[in-house]
Amino acid sequence: MKTPSEFELIKQYFSALTPSRDDVLLGIGDDCALLQTPTGKAVAVSIDTLVSGQHFEPNTSAYDLGHKSLAVGLSDLAAMGAEPAWFTLALTLPGVDVEWLQDFSRGLAALAGEHGIQLVGGDTTSGPLTISIQVHGFTDVEHTLKRSGAQSGDMIYVTGTLGDAGAALALAKGDAKLAAALNLADRDYLQQRLNKPTPRVDFGEQLAGLPTAAIDISDGLLADLGHILEASGKDNKSLGARIDLARLPLSAALQKLPIEKAQQFALSAGDDYELCFTASPAEFGCLQADFADRCTRIGIVDSQAGIYRIDDKGKLVTITTEKAGYEHFTSS
Amino acid sequence: MKTPSEFELIKQYFSALTPSRDDVLLGIGDDCALLQTPTGKAVAVSIDTLVSGQHFEPNTSAYDLGHKSLAVGLSDLAAMGAEPAWFTLALTLPGVDVEWLQDFSRGLAALAGEHGIQLVGGDTTSGPLTISIQVHGFTDVEHTLKRSGAQSGDMIYVTGTLGDAGAALALAKGDAKLAAALNLADRDYLQQRLNKPTPRVDFGEQLAGLPTAAIDISDGLLADLGHILEASGKDNKSLGARIDLARLPLSAALQKLPIEKAQQFALSAGDDYELCFTASPAEFGCLQADFADRCTRIGIVDSQAGIYRIDDKGKLVTITTEKAGYEHFTSS
Repeated sequence: MKTPSEFELIKQYFSALTPSRDDVLLGIGDDCALLQTPTGKAVAVSIDTLVSGQHFEPNTSAYDLGHKSLAVGLSDLAAMGAEPAWFTLALTLPGVDVEWLQDFSRGLAALAGEHGIQLVGGDTTSGPLTISIQVHGFTDVEHTLKRSGAQSGDMIYVTGTLGDAGAALALAKGDAKLAAALNLADRDYLQQRLNKPTPRVDFGEQLAGLPTAAIDISDGLLADLGHILEASGKDNKSLGARIDLARLPLSAALQKLPIEKAQQFALSAGDDYELCFTASPAEFGCLQADFADRCTRIGIVDSQAGIYRIDDKGKLVTITTEKAGYEHFTSS
Repeated sequence: MKTPSEFELIKQYFSALTPSRDDVLLGIGDDCALLQTPTGKAVAVSIDTLVSGQHFEPNTSAYDLGHKSLAVGLSDLAAMGAEPAWFTLALTLPGVDVEWLQDFSRGLAALAGEHGIQLVGGDTTSGPLTISIQVHGFTDVEHTLKRSGAQSGDMIYVTGTLGDAGAALALAKGDAKLAAALNLADRDYLQQRLNKPTPRVDFGEQLAGLPTAAIDISDGLLADLGHILEASGKDNKSLGARIDLARLPLSAALQKLPIEKAQQFALSAGDDYELCFTASPAEFGCLQADFADRCTRIGIVDSQAGIYRIDDKGKLVTITTEKAGYEHFTSS
């Protein structure tokens, strides 16, 4: 069974768009690409699939989709502190739409150029719109940021602001109360945060070696912090966390919403592609001095499983005790 | 937008099935896998997507599909002479069908075990059945088999027999004349050739350094040999080939068909995943001595573009002059 040769041409078309690297010994056009890893470095790889209607609204612009498809992978590299190098693209398309392809590839190429990452292989097939991108980056093994090194007493940090993508998604789904609380500029801003997330690649690389654990926030803070706490636990016992809700970083747009609604987005909504990391109290000074403008301390790791907040009377209140927080989360 | 956490569990489920390698510093379960390339080797990578109804019949057994999804990638490694090491799996499923997943993963794991290749990452999403696998292997740069080294006068070889998968596909599409010419055992054999192809990994590794060019036959001999001839040409001028049709290796099943029909499958049908390679006449003795039982010499590379056969009267007859031979091929 064949795919049209038009798809072969697309493959060639994409190959010229991204940076040309010396460590790509053979790029697109043979049975395999041939890649040279620098001596002493490990290769970090991650593959992510975006399915139309599942991971993006079918009416998302092709340019934004090109950006986002690569951003998701770059965010995984950022979460490891890895330096982007190469990516592959498996693109399933309902048909050949030249204008769509041009826009998609422009969005992809712009972000690829920004991070010096080269497209080295791909496959283009016919079917319902599905985009799989695998990213490859370099990392010093001993400085790699894993999920599994957090300890009780570590401070918890996040980059940027949280909940923006979730609010944009609620808007897209027709939340009228939300729309009424925001002006056009706010809504545009949130839409950009959903469709064109900024992977924190440079920050991840600069941090490498400092955090005890790190992850990118794709499923929502509770879920992803939950992954750190679970992976860092010992003897099948997860660690826990105490979150100071008042410290959750909120964009100007989200600050216009009722505070509980904004915090719910910040805690539970995914697709922000910010980083969440933990660091020992000994690193507090360094983080304050070098990174204070790019991350916010939101809480502390605890030996007691579950994620808690402290209420007005100083009492611990469960936010969630579920591993996959986002699925079962109800506003506290 | 979320995928069900059931899919997260599937990811974990797959991770235990394939061989555990020392060069996998961090496997499934973090933002990235961490992989260690041997000093002095390059990494060969290839990604392929199989879409239901496009690349396999929707009623293909899950076990066979698991096998075939990985076989397609292993065949690309074979075509480069690379040693399999790692793979990733991006699996889009219409729903969670435990029995289907068990069968699929068993088929995948059996072939992975045979070739010592470990699953190091993946993504599982909800949507129409789509399988993307990226394979990674090691190769000595100077011994890598590329498409681009063939020269006029080189001999052309193929492994195994050709056209079996194409005949199976014609049977699946209800070709009654074909079915009548074959018994049940023949039809089963052809079906196996289509659904469970044998990637020529060991052979590719043993050959490495000997051929002037190589490719795997996924789109059909004419198309794939055409890729070698095009990539090996100079100054935008493709090389050509003369094929001795009588030498095309045919299985016992295909030998029961009218010879022109069998040859048409062997020339034009894809999905065989045999290797096609070219070698200088100086290597003839070595190939005869070491590999004669595993490959067949079918023709010679020519400086004149196009693929030709020699007719009964010794005249050259065009088989195809098209680059993408399979699309425009009509029986000669």
